[in-house]
Amino acid sequence: MTSADDRATLVSVARAAGVSRQTVSNALHAPGKVAPETLERVLAAVAELGYRPSLAARQLRTNRSRTLGLRLEHWGGGISGSVLDRFLHALVDEAQGRGYRVVLFTADDDSGEVARYGELLSSGQVDGFVLTSTHHGDARTAWLLERSVPFATFGRPWPSPGAEQEVSRDHCWVDVDGAAGTRAATEHLIAAGHEAPAYLGWPDGSGTGEDRRLGWAQALARAGVDPAAAVELKVPDSTAAAVEAVTAALSGDGGAVGAGGAPTAVVCASDSLALGARGAAARLGRPLEVIGFDDTPVADAIGVSSVAQPLGEAATLAVDLLLAQVEAGPDGPPPPRQHLLAPRLVLRGAP
Amino acid sequence: MTSADDRATLVSVARAAGVSRQTVSNALHAPGKVAPETLERVLAAVAELGYRPSLAARQLRTNRSRTLGLRLEHWGGGISGSVLDRFLHALVDEAQGRGYRVVLFTADDDSGEVARYGELLSSGQVDGFVLTSTHHGDARTAWLLERSVPFATFGRPWPSPGAEQEVSRDHCWVDVDGAAGTRAATEHLIAAGHEAPAYLGWPDGSGTGEDRRLGWAQALARAGVDPAAAVELKVPDSTAAAVEAVTAALSGDGGAVGAGGAPTAVVCASDSLALGARGAAARLGRPLEVIGFDDTPVADAIGVSSVAQPLGEAATLAVDLLLAQVEAGPDGPPPPRQHLLAPRLVLRGAP
Repeated sequence: MTSADDRATLVSVARAAGVSRQTVSNALHAPGKVAPETLERVLAAVAELGYRPSLAARQLRTNRSRTLGLRLEHWGGGISGSVLDRFLHALVDEAQGRGYRVVLFTADDDSGEVARYGELLSSGQVDGFVLTSTHHGDARTAWLLERSVPFATFGRPWPSPGAEQEVSRDHCWVDVDGAAGTRAATEHLIAAGHEAPAYLGWPDGSGTGEDRRLGWAQALARAGVDPAAAVELKVPDSTAAAVEAVTAALSGDGGAVGAGGAPTAVVCASDSLALGARGAAARLGRPLEVIGFDDTPVADAIGVSSVAQPLGEAATLAVDLLLAQVEAGPDGPPPPRQHLLAPRLVLRGAP
Repeated sequence: MTSADDRATLVSVARAAGVSRQTVSNALHAPGKVAPETLERVLAAVAELGYRPSLAARQLRTNRSRTLGLRLEHWGGGISGSVLDRFLHALVDEAQGRGYRVVLFTADDDSGEVARYGELLSSGQVDGFVLTSTHHGDARTAWLLERSVPFATFGRPWPSPGAEQEVSRDHCWVDVDGAAGTRAATEHLIAAGHEAPAYLGWPDGSGTGEDRRLGWAQALARAGVDPAAAVELKVPDSTAAAVEAVTAALSGDGGAVGAGGAPTAVVCASDSLALGARGAAARLGRPLEVIGFDDTPVADAIGVSSVAQPLGEAATLAVDLLLAQVEAGPDGPPPPRQHLLAPRLVLRGAP
């Protein structure tokens, strides 16, 4: 590898071939303008010196940066925050395998993220975007669709009342079927003899949260149990809040949404909540089967069952969907496609 | 914000001002070549249309990408893996505040990382690099130093036998004083009445690991305890391995490096190990004070004391050190500087 200081330049190639810089440029970009034997001499010098036209110069010609943009969310702490970081690792690997890089930026909210899109697009620094954390009333996808900017989201569009809803649903996305995950978890617990597993979820208002709750309710209903009669707890995504809520539920205290008695098993919307549920049961010396969500490193470390998202597959498909738009030929981009991936139930015994 | 489709171009500015494209370009980059009243008309059109020369064009002139490169390590699982992801979040925030972006790439090892440096530099895509996970025999820093490429490392150079050692130590780095962290943890336990806290660390060969072990040994020596007489366990960074080793040590089994009896407190090289130590003690019903390292979300969630690295400060300083080199004026880059940051002991009671 040549060093940054002595690498070949247009000037050194021109000198080696005994031609002008313009002739080198023509040989590379408009070879028809160059006499055959001159062309041969220039290309031999290019090959011998290992000359590579700079990216900045190539970009001016191809209008392609081979770079994908992604907003890196602020570090929020918490056990489940690592899910998007794991997706990022998979995305960078996948993009690199396809010859693309990932450039990161931050923003405080949707409008800040849209402002960054504008900056990156107008300066030609990205070919498209990957979006994470789709949510009710997402302003980002409508903005990108209006401008025909290539993008794909990890997370489906969550319907919400609003005029742009139908438009913004029609784009490329990859998501994981959360309901299928909690349904499998609940069915596993019912098969193991727990008549009415409880649900420990988040407060209303999260599309992801409602999806995960749905799978639990579906599995109960299929087993002939009215979800309204089972224990349901709603707490913020913190282990401490989960400890408190589950302690109350196991003690027969109020606080549970449903009318059931003390649960013997609980399906959780996250591993943070699962950790709290297990802590509460251990402290009270009560048996409680717990299944979390996201299969975080902590679930693995302490032996809690959990629902694993196929993050590698999600990243591969997101890059596929995005690059199909970026690299679309003369016939224009393909119609939007969507992938809803099945999660996997990972069963563990306590260590 | 104008859309990507109707944004101002050199052509639209030229048309609005009634001049040639070359005149617009001259007005922006060589205003002395343009008659004053023409210049005024062109700049008015630039302002009115909101024209921004593209980044690719600006790069050709300034030879600056305003982008910093960072290798994103492969996702390794584990509780402590999140430390570098938290550093990444802080780094992207800090870089953006200074008008720089962060582009990510991956590599399997040092030589793969160096190959990427070469690609990014020769294509003009980065102004410099941030390196993480410095290690014995690090081949990357010598490569960058030889080529005078701006860089800063998060992690100090770890000495190892080899010719390039002295050269590669003399660069910009930021690191956290791991020994100070374990020293504070050990002193805290001694002050709380534990005569000889044990150490649960990694196998030999890690500069970071040896640094963390050192603080424990120093605190014992200062308290008049021979570290060789205390219990010392060496295991890979996994919770399961920690459970096994601590179970053996608490049971009076062999396996401990030192000759001490069953410990009543243990300082750990990571939160993964701390989690295992606590699990082993709980299972045996034995009291054991545990202090981890890295203050991961799991330590917070389950109430384990830990040593916190100041990752935000480290990112700020790494960007400072790197940009001082990138933006060095005619007098050339400043001499290398280093920052060794003090960690913080975070004490928690079990929930």
